[in-house]
Amino acid sequence: MNYPTTINNLIDCFKKLPGIGEKTAERLALAVLDLNEETIDLFSQSLKDSKIKIKNCSQCGNLTENDLCNICQDKTRDTNVLCVVEESQNIVLFEKMGTFHGLYHVLGGLISPLDGINPEDINLKNLEERIKKENIKEVILAIKPSVEGETTALYINKLLEKYDVTVTKIAYGIPIGADIDYIDPITLSIALEGRMKIS
Amino acid sequence: MNYPTTINNLIDCFKKLPGIGEKTAERLALAVLDLNEETIDLFSQSLKDSKIKIKNCSQCGNLTENDLCNICQDKTRDTNVLCVVEESQNIVLFEKMGTFHGLYHVLGGLISPLDGINPEDINLKNLEERIKKENIKEVILAIKPSVEGETTALYINKLLEKYDVTVTKIAYGIPIGADIDYIDPITLSIALEGRMKIS
Repeated sequence: MNYPTTINNLIDCFKKLPGIGEKTAERLALAVLDLNEETIDLFSQSLKDSKIKIKNCSQCGNLTENDLCNICQDKTRDTNVLCVVEESQNIVLFEKMGTFHGLYHVLGGLISPLDGINPEDINLKNLEERIKKENIKEVILAIKPSVEGETTALYINKLLEKYDVTVTKIAYGIPIGADIDYIDPITLSIALEGRMKIS
Repeated sequence: MNYPTTINNLIDCFKKLPGIGEKTAERLALAVLDLNEETIDLFSQSLKDSKIKIKNCSQCGNLTENDLCNICQDKTRDTNVLCVVEESQNIVLFEKMGTFHGLYHVLGGLISPLDGINPEDINLKNLEERIKKENIKEVILAIKPSVEGETTALYINKLLEKYDVTVTKIAYGIPIGADIDYIDPITLSIALEGRMKIS
């Protein structure tokens, strides 16, 4: 490569990010040269901060710069409902929706014995602790409908059996706006199974 | 947005790069959290260095960290041939090809009066100086075949008329491997015009 070392380093760094290949990395590295000094400083500092400042909320596991994340700190949230998600970014989606006002719990993964991820590898111990300590009445599992997701859901259901808490999971079915012609048979069969009376 | 400030800052910075929208920026910012400390340090430092260390070669205008770029410093290059390109990244393409051993000259843009880019805005003065001072016998114009490219090529040809130097331009025509059925009429007409005797 005939670029100066700095640019080659930038290319290498961009290439480490998912979905960025040689050509895109090169384009991005050259685009960095056109960024203004302010952006460069913020970018450079934020990268450093990502390793230093960002940690997991001690209560729910969400990304935060403090001990508790801004949702756990928020006194207006409904502390009776807990929504269990796989990753922090799922919380952002739920918050964008704007209709859920309970608390969250981030698992940080799903049980997948084939990949060596066992129940003790995800944030389950903390979940049980929260059920014991906090005043939670309903645990909503918002986990993707895959083998790992189902396994995790069943495990959590079993784990919380002995507590006075309702465990529910979000509905799987046909997404709004989709044409039934294009829905795969598994989704369709799950949607059929989960049919509800029209009130 | 429900991300910590550092992550929001990273998202903003990634979004400033070309071709990166909100969703991709979010994905990349979260992927940064999985990079190891070494990569983060290199990434952060390289961003800073891009503003401090990277400059244009005083001779050819190529990106470099020194006064002269590594091609201009290379004593084994053929100093009789000069390849004029629009941007530094074009040099990388030529170097990958591996069959050109002359020197380069980076214009840093093409003449485009409509966009307010006049001959004095691109690296032409330096080109004329080089023709005067260096022992250049042929100037190859490797500029894209567009209105701006053609204007620039004609201007350079005119500019160098008074010097004892041959000005050529790379061939425009049908790319190797392409099916003639899919070639646009302008390319086809240029390819026809530029036909050569089969030796």
